[in-house]
Amino acid sequence: MNGTLSGVGVGPGDPELMTFLAWRVIGAADVVAFIGADGRPSRAQSTAAAAIRAQSVLLPIDMPMRADPDAGQAAYDLAATRITRHLQEGRNVAFLCEGDPLLYGSFIYLMARLQDRFTVEVVPGLPSFAACAAVLRQPLGRRSESFGIVPGTLPDDALRARLAVLDSVAIIKAGRHASRIAAVLDGLGMLERAMVVEEVSTERQALRPLTTVPGDLPYFATIIIPAGDPA
Amino acid sequence: MNGTLSGVGVGPGDPELMTFLAWRVIGAADVVAFIGADGRPSRAQSTAAAAIRAQSVLLPIDMPMRADPDAGQAAYDLAATRITRHLQEGRNVAFLCEGDPLLYGSFIYLMARLQDRFTVEVVPGLPSFAACAAVLRQPLGRRSESFGIVPGTLPDDALRARLAVLDSVAIIKAGRHASRIAAVLDGLGMLERAMVVEEVSTERQALRPLTTVPGDLPYFATIIIPAGDPA
Repeated sequence: MNGTLSGVGVGPGDPELMTFLAWRVIGAADVVAFIGADGRPSRAQSTAAAAIRAQSVLLPIDMPMRADPDAGQAAYDLAATRITRHLQEGRNVAFLCEGDPLLYGSFIYLMARLQDRFTVEVVPGLPSFAACAAVLRQPLGRRSESFGIVPGTLPDDALRARLAVLDSVAIIKAGRHASRIAAVLDGLGMLERAMVVEEVSTERQALRPLTTVPGDLPYFATIIIPAGDPA
Repeated sequence: MNGTLSGVGVGPGDPELMTFLAWRVIGAADVVAFIGADGRPSRAQSTAAAAIRAQSVLLPIDMPMRADPDAGQAAYDLAATRITRHLQEGRNVAFLCEGDPLLYGSFIYLMARLQDRFTVEVVPGLPSFAACAAVLRQPLGRRSESFGIVPGTLPDDALRARLAVLDSVAIIKAGRHASRIAAVLDGLGMLERAMVVEEVSTERQALRPLTTVPGDLPYFATIIIPAGDPA
């Protein structure tokens, strides 16, 4: 009998922000897989470390983060092949995901490759934007307001179109686009309330207004724009 | 010394979808407060039941759900007064919130009334949309896609403007607006992939395509529109 593949969200970084379900599924897994990007240590793995049993097989998966699309596809294909081998031999595999597995996670591409042949389940995890809003103590949605997650990699026009109809926003993947995003926000009158949260829920967590950021932002930074005056 | 007020997200309903931090903060609270709407039992309270110590004071707060705005404001004022009394006497208060405290929760209005006088902290919780996407095994965000939470109570034009720029959407508060929302989605070519999730992560959980819903939806239903073909 084949094993089950579980995509397990471990939340934004603080192990206490894992759910009991994530802990239980990770603890029951024969194989624990996680992405190691460009040789960096896996954030999801360190978050979940205490939940992993000593006898579980660790399956680190190399994933080039900024590679060309073809290299990315090849890496997912290879990862799917390695996971397939474990599933076919009856081992349950937990694939660790930062935040939630279905929000901008690598698990989405593994699920697409494996769900026709194997049982796949998803254990949701706390998305990082919720942890960011919590440390800022800023509401993201009230009454008829709309909240959205928008990648900062979008070109100016697309970014503007999305920000214009949302009352509160989390801008992810801002990194090298921070200055350009700030200019778009300024044009919409949203810059003054834009806050940057770096490495949320970890020891390196830092908060600052976007207006004080001189250049680029690090990869694990999120820009939170809380809703303005009550709707 | 005054007590601390904590807004604690307990997630969508399954107690296993609580975080360890939520469990710890609830267990350490002298007073556990929660909304009881129109005499209905509190969903957040039953989710968190096992985390509440026997010696904690329970503070149910009546909140009319569909009352006129003035009655709602008066109810929040009264709740803030009752919580103030406990905080002033040095008791820590955990206010239980379904999902996440800062996404469409009553806690937002209590925080606004109390944060100038007392220490307020927010413990984020798993938003219900993430649990909905998990049971559907449908991605909400890939690469440069945008995801949003949009209240179904918005008028058609506002709803259309938001849906048109989002790749994936969770429509909340659909209830009595389900047929109207379906018509708007149909016009945008998004109806066929719209799924309804009722009472997610509970024993009463049910999934069905929005096209099969003849009329209204219950209050605890979310419409999930996953992203279409990969961006």
